[in-house]
Amino acid sequence: MKKSDKNITIQNLKDIAKKFRDDRDWAQFHSPKELAIDMSIETGELLELFLWKSKEEIAEKLISDISFKQNISDELADVVHACLAFANSADIDLSSAVITKIEKTAQKYPIEKAKGLTKKYTEL
Amino acid sequence: MKKSDKNITIQNLKDIAKKFRDDRDWAQFHSPKELAIDMSIETGELLELFLWKSKEEIAEKLISDISFKQNISDELADVVHACLAFANSADIDLSSAVITKIEKTAQKYPIEKAKGLTKKYTEL
Amino acid sequence: MKKSDKNITIQNLKDIAKKFRDDRDWAQFHSPKELAIDMSIETGELLELFLWKSKEEIAEKLISDISFKQNISDELADVVHACLAFANSADIDLSSAVITKIEKTAQKYPIEKAKGLTKKYTEL
Amino acid sequence: MKKSDKNITIQNLKDIAKKFRDDRDWAQFHSPKELAIDMSIETGELLELFLWKSKEEIAEKLISDISFKQNISDELADVVHACLAFANSADIDLSSAVITKIEKTAQKYPIEKAKGLTKKYTEL
Repeated sequence: MKKSDKNITIQNLKDIAKKFRDDRDWAQFHSPKELAIDMSIETGELLELFLWKSKEEIAEKLISDISFKQNISDELADVVHACLAFANSADIDLSSAVITKIEKTAQKYPIEKAKGLTKKYTEL
Repeated sequence: MKKSDKNITIQNLKDIAKKFRDDRDWAQFHSPKELAIDMSIETGELLELFLWKSKEEIAEKLISDISFKQNISDELADVVHACLAFANSADIDLSSAVITKIEKTAQKYPIEKAKGLTKKYTEL
Repeated sequence: MKKSDKNITIQNLKDIAKKFRDDRDWAQFHSPKELAIDMSIETGELLELFLWKSKEEIAEKLISDISFKQNISDELADVVHACLAFANSADIDLSSAVITKIEKTAQKYPIEKAKGLTKKYTEL
Repeated sequence: MKKSDKNITIQNLKDIAKKFRDDRDWAQFHSPKELAIDMSIETGELLELFLWKSKEEIAEKLISDISFKQNISDELADVVHACLAFANSADIDLSSAVITKIEKTAQKYPIEKAKGLTKKYTEL
């Protein structure tokens, strides 16, 4: 069966990130702080692909320019890789963390108040 | 069964992020560019938890300070939430993206050359 | 005479940042690495003011919304403050650094090739 | 007289950034939002120079490794260049912004309370 988001668990990805790290004996460098710095660097590289470009240009390039789409996929993957390594290093269950946090955020942004708006919850 | 990284797929998390977005009619704001900006903001909030702190202090607080651990978990979750929303918006299969990219990175950092070192691949 | 960009030197601002730091005995925390992390956090706070907003909305708010303009000014100031503290910590003459780097960038982006374009220099 | 932080005003640097922009007809791209994104990207490039390195390694390299020092100076300059372009675009007097903001921050961190500590002002 082809590997895809439908059949890969978070643990599968965490294990791949862990093997990549341990094969290279890099656990010694993977503190949460360094990995958060790495996340910030990788996010900057993703952002660079969008700099100076309008939403329309980007939407068009995502369809017509295969190497642009590939670069975006690769840079997003680097950010997610850093997140997985972080979760491994800080011993965090990512699924629980995400589900719990989205529930908190949902309470800050109740549907009836936040629908269709971009205001911060402090202004709702 | 308790939800955890072992039984939650990437698609499960993407669906939760999609429902959160669609309940609020926010797809109109969720362009890849805005979500990359959001990723950068959320990464900054995660980094703030580590600012001025040594690795030793952080390791100690991760064990002894429950609210510190919770804050880290929440801020990491916000970054991952933005990544999921990005993957939804740009129609990216995250598992394939991460697995493909880690294979590329593994080739840039061959085990025999990179083991135990932090050099950039251009310097190996 | 009113203090303004016309009569304040970079050294004047560096001295203000240094006094702020030394009054609090914070030089011990001000390593270049921590200050680069701080720069990243502060840039995230500036970016947050623009998240989800179109250029038109922002341009309009910059004129009509005094507290928006003030918040932007404050967050930009925090980034610049971190840059000044960094220059103090790493003993960098900022003026020389900026002038030298803009000359390098000008060579990467020759006027006749780069005029009116947003391409990266590697694509010119 | 050699140009240095002692005799270069903020306006001098802003004018250099403005000329660089106008020579290339780039004012059309320089909205505050894009420049804040640029700031974030450039900060990531600065951070990358410190990733995985301890404070001791960095302090040592700053003295012994001329190209490391030059790279840091160049990347810091790119961040500051983006700040200057932002101030030009949003019509902000940087000196007033920085001096005003440092005074506010000084009130949040009174010397007698904050001396020698890294706590956030909300915890002092």
